[in-house]
Amino acid sequence: MSQVWWVNHKQTVGQEIGGQYLWSPKKDKNGRRIEYYENMRRAQPGDLVISYANRQVNHIGRVAEFAFSAHKPIEFGTKGAQWSNDGWYLPVYWVPLSPPVRPKKLIEVLGPLLPTKHSPLRSYSGDGNQLYLARVSKAVFDVIVSKSTYDAELLLRGGANSLTFQSIAERLDDDAERRIGENLELDDTVKKAVIQARRGQGTFRSSVEAIEKSCRLTGITNRSLLIASHIKPWRSCETAQERLHGMNGLLLTPDADLLFDRGFITFEDDGKVQVSPRFDHEDLRRLGLGNIVSPLRGFSEAPFVWQTDAFAPAQCRYLEYHRRQVYVQ
Amino acid sequence: MSQVWWVNHKQTVGQEIGGQYLWSPKKDKNGRRIEYYENMRRAQPGDLVISYANRQVNHIGRVAEFAFSAHKPIEFGTKGAQWSNDGWYLPVYWVPLSPPVRPKKLIEVLGPLLPTKHSPLRSYSGDGNQLYLARVSKAVFDVIVSKSTYDAELLLRGGANSLTFQSIAERLDDDAERRIGENLELDDTVKKAVIQARRGQGTFRSSVEAIEKSCRLTGITNRSLLIASHIKPWRSCETAQERLHGMNGLLLTPDADLLFDRGFITFEDDGKVQVSPRFDHEDLRRLGLGNIVSPLRGFSEAPFVWQTDAFAPAQCRYLEYHRRQVYVQ
Repeated sequence: MSQVWWVNHKQTVGQEIGGQYLWSPKKDKNGRRIEYYENMRRAQPGDLVISYANRQVNHIGRVAEFAFSAHKPIEFGTKGAQWSNDGWYLPVYWVPLSPPVRPKKLIEVLGPLLPTKHSPLRSYSGDGNQLYLARVSKAVFDVIVSKSTYDAELLLRGGANSLTFQSIAERLDDDAERRIGENLELDDTVKKAVIQARRGQGTFRSSVEAIEKSCRLTGITNRSLLIASHIKPWRSCETAQERLHGMNGLLLTPDADLLFDRGFITFEDDGKVQVSPRFDHEDLRRLGLGNIVSPLRGFSEAPFVWQTDAFAPAQCRYLEYHRRQVYVQ
Repeated sequence: MSQVWWVNHKQTVGQEIGGQYLWSPKKDKNGRRIEYYENMRRAQPGDLVISYANRQVNHIGRVAEFAFSAHKPIEFGTKGAQWSNDGWYLPVYWVPLSPPVRPKKLIEVLGPLLPTKHSPLRSYSGDGNQLYLARVSKAVFDVIVSKSTYDAELLLRGGANSLTFQSIAERLDDDAERRIGENLELDDTVKKAVIQARRGQGTFRSSVEAIEKSCRLTGITNRSLLIASHIKPWRSCETAQERLHGMNGLLLTPDADLLFDRGFITFEDDGKVQVSPRFDHEDLRRLGLGNIVSPLRGFSEAPFVWQTDAFAPAQCRYLEYHRRQVYVQ
């Protein structure tokens, strides 16, 4: 069942609509996690989004992928300078609403449908509240679109191709690589090693191979079939040290690498595997991962966990990041 | 059981030893396939290689990966200008033999050990023959190294990290991308689409998605888990048209993409899957592909084939290339 979200854009509305995404910092200016930033992580592919800016709804959207941990978009420029660089990037495919809708005019109908807590609009005046992403009911969506028109087919299918996980990950990695290239404090040799590490090559791979000997999910030891994956994603690392640290890596087959990078699987410090409840178990079976361990074989209702070797303390530091910021709960 | 090869380098010995590979054209100057170029495809990871140049053996090597279809290395410059650009690239990890060995001096012992056909040396005079890669016996290797010393540990383990399939594929792709960048006849928009196609993105992906609907190996339809793979590899395509043609693509999960790109699986025109006899069936099972179809489940001795939908004629043209030039027989 898809959820419905309402976003009150700030001054970056143009960048977000044009770039097919939403972006928010992870924490408010006091360093606290707040409901309407946390909602970025709760949005799921297929969810609907109402885009509200300058007192009207100009676009509606469909969430294309789960949120990524991502640096503040370069195209924001000086806008949003008060936000920290560490944020959530939610891929959303937007389509225009024509004509735009002014919710204030509909407040008599909308008011009773708005949530009592964390409402994007004041239910009496119809003015916008100071928040970013809020959950609303499908009825709110229906009222808004009943006053206008949009291309439903485009909303459902359009942009699908450009908003896959892989293409967005590439783009975010490209942005990170550009920032590394422009970093005047990094030595050229280090830059080269860091950029090789993006694809799991070079000194990073050697360092990981000194620690991990096989894919923890499939048991594969054939090096030609293994990728040196970052636990804390390469694009999210803050320093060259983090990007090159062997303790920040696992050897995984390409399927396992994708699932881990996408946050559909993670590990406990003791080596237990966790599979996201948001991940389709039939897909897990088709990927051949459902056959490795007995709890999956029968599609039991129990949580899908299986056991690998316990991690070293230095690995656990990165795993904690993965569980909190990458794993899709 | 590893094989032993003998290479008679031409003027590109420095590039080949320094770059950790062998390279040969696929055909001779008359456009014919010849034994000692075909041997590039017969070499397997773990095989030993004796490097002969300027009348002596300065290096011995270990084959690190099956041969790739690859353009003539840029670093050859004007050397080997007579060779066509379409060739085989065989990753070999070389270690020095110290002191170098002159086979001519050992010809009384070596002579009787040399093959009667396609011998790299004349068995009476000990002079080099006009050929590139020849198969010799382990006894030939033993005689050569008995007169010198080398680091056996380094030969076995060294350089392993830099010569994985993925790192070599990246490097060959980088070379191809550089050539595209320098191609003055290509429009910038086309260049951009062609470069996006390298990672299976952009218009190439859309075109493939219009033709193929799921992974032919796993049945996965979830687009987030699928890669748009080239049938004729991106790095081997000769034109922008080939790189962007939807008929030159399949939708595959990351594991299947790697196996297909590496030539461990291929397809018949009627849709039958072929698994290379060189690929470890235990690895296939661990990757979860052994569980999809019944012939694999029991590890029957029969060839591992299973059936997918028949291909369109335009796809078959690319599949023929894949079967002949990529598939590891």
